[in-house]
Amino acid sequence: MCEASAYLRNGDKDELLLQDVNKITPDGDILIIEDIFGDRKMVKGKIKEIILLDHKIIIEKN
Amino acid sequence: MCEASAYLRNGDKDELLLQDVNKITPDGDILIIEDIFGDRKMVKGKIKEIILLDHKIIIEKN
Repeated sequence: MCEASAYLRNGDKDELLLQDVNKITPDGDILIIEDIFGDRKMVKGKIKEIILLDHKIIIEKN
Repeated sequence: MCEASAYLRNGDKDELLLQDVNKITPDGDILIIEDIFGDRKMVKGKIKEIILLDHKIIIEKN
């Protein structure tokens, strides 16, 4: 499966926000992240980096 | 493999920008997209939506 985990970068640590992420939709200064079960999380922040083969989505605060 | 294809949304059409994308790194109003071979493309635009299970990255112009 090709889902990824979303992490919030906090200094030099990455805190897990959501696993099994399928969809990421930026909306203004919010990111809507949705997992493969359809559960959603809204995070104030922006995409710092996505590395698909590592299944990693790094988000940083605005 | 979990790479995706990047498309530029142009009206109601999605034009293929790059296949086999591994990394996406926003940098100001630029997106750096890198494929699994390490080749990079820089695009002026922002992420509209990423759907991992569909292997789709939708980019729209700023």
